Amino acid sequence: MVSRLWQLNILEESKDENYMETLWESRFALRTHRMTSSVIRELLKLTQRPEVISFAGGLPAAEYFPVERFQEACQRVLATQAHYALQYGPTEGYLPLREMIVERMARDNICVTVDNVLITSGSQQALSLIGALLINPGDHVLVEQPTYLGALQAFATYQADYVGVPTDNDGLCVDQLPAALRHGPKFMYILPNFQNPAGVTISAERRRVLIGLAQQQGVPIVEDDPYGQLRFEGDSLPPLVSVDAELAGNNGHCYTGNVIYLSTFSKTLAPGLRTAWIVASPPVIHKLVQLKQGADLHTSTFTQMITYEVAKDGFIDEHVRLLRQVYRQRRDVMLSALDRYMPPEVRWTHPTGGLFLWVHLPSEIKIRELFEEALRRNVAFVPGDAFFTVPDPPPTARLNFSCMPEDAIVEGIRRLSEAIKDLQRAAHPMIAL
Amino acid sequence: MVSRLWQLNILEESKDENYMETLWESRFALRTHRMTSSVIRELLKLTQRPEVISFAGGLPAAEYFPVERFQEACQRVLATQAHYALQYGPTEGYLPLREMIVERMARDNICVTVDNVLITSGSQQALSLIGALLINPGDHVLVEQPTYLGALQAFATYQADYVGVPTDNDGLCVDQLPAALRHGPKFMYILPNFQNPAGVTISAERRRVLIGLAQQQGVPIVEDDPYGQLRFEGDSLPPLVSVDAELAGNNGHCYTGNVIYLSTFSKTLAPGLRTAWIVASPPVIHKLVQLKQGADLHTSTFTQMITYEVAKDGFIDEHVRLLRQVYRQRRDVMLSALDRYMPPEVRWTHPTGGLFLWVHLPSEIKIRELFEEALRRNVAFVPGDAFFTVPDPPPTARLNFSCMPEDAIVEGIRRLSEAIKDLQRAAHPMIAL
Repeated sequence: MVSRLWQLNILEESKDENYMETLWESRFALRTHRMTSSVIRELLKLTQRPEVISFAGGLPAAEYFPVERFQEACQRVLATQAHYALQYGPTEGYLPLREMIVERMARDNICVTVDNVLITSGSQQALSLIGALLINPGDHVLVEQPTYLGALQAFATYQADYVGVPTDNDGLCVDQLPAALRHGPKFMYILPNFQNPAGVTISAERRRVLIGLAQQQGVPIVEDDPYGQLRFEGDSLPPLVSVDAELAGNNGHCYTGNVIYLSTFSKTLAPGLRTAWIVASPPVIHKLVQLKQGADLHTSTFTQMITYEVAKDGFIDEHVRLLRQVYRQRRDVMLSALDRYMPPEVRWTHPTGGLFLWVHLPSEIKIRELFEEALRRNVAFVPGDAFFTVPDPPPTARLNFSCMPEDAIVEGIRRLSEAIKDLQRAAHPMIAL
Repeated sequence: MVSRLWQLNILEESKDENYMETLWESRFALRTHRMTSSVIRELLKLTQRPEVISFAGGLPAAEYFPVERFQEACQRVLATQAHYALQYGPTEGYLPLREMIVERMARDNICVTVDNVLITSGSQQALSLIGALLINPGDHVLVEQPTYLGALQAFATYQADYVGVPTDNDGLCVDQLPAALRHGPKFMYILPNFQNPAGVTISAERRRVLIGLAQQQGVPIVEDDPYGQLRFEGDSLPPLVSVDAELAGNNGHCYTGNVIYLSTFSKTLAPGLRTAWIVASPPVIHKLVQLKQGADLHTSTFTQMITYEVAKDGFIDEHVRLLRQVYRQRRDVMLSALDRYMPPEVRWTHPTGGLFLWVHLPSEIKIRELFEEALRRNVAFVPGDAFFTVPDPPPTARLNFSCMPEDAIVEGIRRLSEAIKDLQRAAHPMIAL
C-alpha cells in the first residue's frame, strides 16, 4: 500500500511511452507540453474507497443539498418554460439570473448593471476565460503563496509564469507586494476570503493597501470569492471590487474599475449545476463573451434557470445560514481534534469561514510520504506542495472540514496525527515522542 | 430600417472607442486582437422580434422537445441520486452516459471503450479543447469551404490560419486535397453529413479517398457529426472514424486511429443541456481531459444524468425517428417554395438530412444588402460569407428549415425571393425581370 502512489506514477509513465508510438504527440501544441492532471483530481481517485476518511476534496456537504427545492424548481421550469429552458440561449447568460446577481452585488455596495455580469460554467471556466483574455505565453501572474491549484491549472493552458507573495494569518503579506510588482505581473490573482487552500482572510487594512497599489501601478486584480458567504463569525469585510470602486470614486451605475470579481453557486447551492459568474467592467465582459462563444457557446440554459428558481425569493440566504451553522460546527470539531491529537510541532490556521484549514508540519516530514502513510490508515488530505508555484516548499497539508460527519472528522484527525508521529519517530529514531 | 445593421456597427465601434479609455485593452492578450463576436449570434439579436420569420438560427424545433420525458427524468434523478447529481463529478463524464456512447459507436462498427470517450459541454467545447490540444499560433487547419462558423471561432482563440478546400454536391472536393495538404495543415476539420452550412454530404467513395490521404500523410481528421442521425432518405454512410479504423485494420477493442469524432445530444434531444461527446484514441482523450480540467472541471453532473435518463432504453432512437419526419417535411416545404418563388438564376442544395440548405445567389447580389432587404420584409437568414475563410466569396445564404412551421417557411421564402428580385431590378434597371 505504501507504494501505491508510485505504482500509479509508473503506470502513467509507461502509458505515456505507448502514447509516443502514435503520431498524435508530434502534433500536440506547445501549450500542452508542461501540462499535467490536477494532483487533487488524481489523488481523489485513490481516496474514493468508502472506508477512507477524506479531507482531500473541496466538496460541499451533499446531505444538505436542498433537494426538495430542486425538485420543485425542475417541475416549475419544465411545466411553464420548457421550450426556453431546453433551447440554445444567449452567451451572456439567463437574464433573470444576471439581474439577481446585480441585486446581490448591490448589498456589497457595488453598483453594476447586467452589462457587468457574465454567467460561466463554474468559476473554473471564469478562470480559463480570464487566462485567455489576459495571458500571453510567458506573462507573469502574481499569486498568493500558496494559491488555488485550479487557477494554476487554468492559467497553465495559456503558458503563464508566476510571481508569488507569501500569506500569513492576515492573508496576503502586502509589505512584500511592491517588490513583487516590480516583476511586472499582467494581473494579480487573489482569494481574499477563507482562502483555498490556507483558510486565511485578508484584513480590511491590507485590502486597502492592496487596492491602492493596484490602482497606482495599473495592475488589475482578479478577485476569486467562492466562499465569502460562508462566514462563521465576525463581520464581513468589503470585497476588493468594492474597495476599488470606493477608492477610485468611480462606483457609478456601471462598474468600470480595475477588479474582475468571481463568485459561484457551487458552494452555496450545489456544484453539480456548474453555475458561476463574473462581474467586471463592460469592455472586459464584452471580450469575455466573445471568448465564451468560442469556448462553449453558453452555459446550460436549463441549469441556469434551475439555479435561479432555487435561489430566488431569499431562499439562498436562508440556506446559506444553515450551511454556516453546519460548517462552523465541523470546523470546531476539527480544531478540537487537532488540539487534542496533534504533536506540539504541528501548527494550523483557524479559518473564520469557508471549507478548509491548512496544516504546517515539522520540517523533517516529507509530505508525500505522509500522504501515503495516512492513506495506509485510510485517511486522506491534499499535500500542500501542489498549491505552490515554487519547488520544495515547507511541508503543509490542506484539510477540508465541510464534507465529513463529525465523528469521522475526529477519527480522521486522530489517524493523521498517528501517521505524523510515526514519521517523526522514523526521522528521529533516538527521541521518544 | 435598411441602415439598421450599419447603425449597429457604428454603435459597436463607438463603444469600442470608449473602451480604449480604460487600461484594460493594453492588457488583453494577443490572441484576442483579431477576435470578433459570432456574426450569427449578433444577427440573431436583430432577428428575434416575433414578427420575423427566421431561417437564421440553427435551432431544433422546440415544440418537439420531449418535455414529459425530461420531467420524469428530473423527478427520478432527484428522488434517487440527488447527492451524486448535484455534487462535483469526474472530468471524463458520467460513466453510464459514456457507456451508452460506447454502445452507440458500436452500431457504426467502431470498437471503443469508455477510455475513448470524453463528455463535453456541447460540441463547441469539444472544438475549443481540440484547438487547445493541437493549434500553435499560425498553424494551418484544413477546412471545407464553406465551413462551420463556430469551429472558426473556437480555433481563432488559438490563432489558427486556414487552408480551404471547396465543396460541391458530393461534399469535399477530394481531387483538390493533395494540393491543399502541401500547405502542411496540422489537422483537417470535416463535417461529413448534411454539412453546416451547405447541407451537403461527402459520398462514400470520397470518404475512402479522404481517409487514405490522411493516413498516408499522417494528417489527423476532426470529424464533426452533429446531424448524422437526422437522415431523411437513402442509406447511412459510414462515419470517417469507421472508415479510418477499417482501412488501417486497427479497429481493436480500443480505437487508436487518426480521427477525432465529435457528436452531440443538442440536435437529437435538446441543446439547452449542453451535452456532447468526443471519441478519440486514448492518448488524445487523456490530454483533452487535462485541458478540460483547466477549462471547466467537468460538465454539469445533473444535465449529464438527465441526458442519460432521457436517452436510455431506446427512447432517443424513437425520438429521432419523429424528428426525421418533421424535419423532412419542413425541408420538402422549403424546397417546393424555393422552386415556386425563386428567380431562375438562384440555385440551392438538396440536403438529405440535417437542418440547413444553402442558396447560391446571382453574382450581382451583395449578400449583406440582401440581408437588410430581407429583414425589412421581416425575414432573416445568415449571409454565407461568414462561413468562408477567404474574403469576398460569391454571394450565398444559409437557410435553416428545422424550426419554423410550414406556413411560415412558405411565406418566408416568398418574401426572400421578392427581396432578391428587388435587388436584381436595382442592379439591372433596364431589364424587366
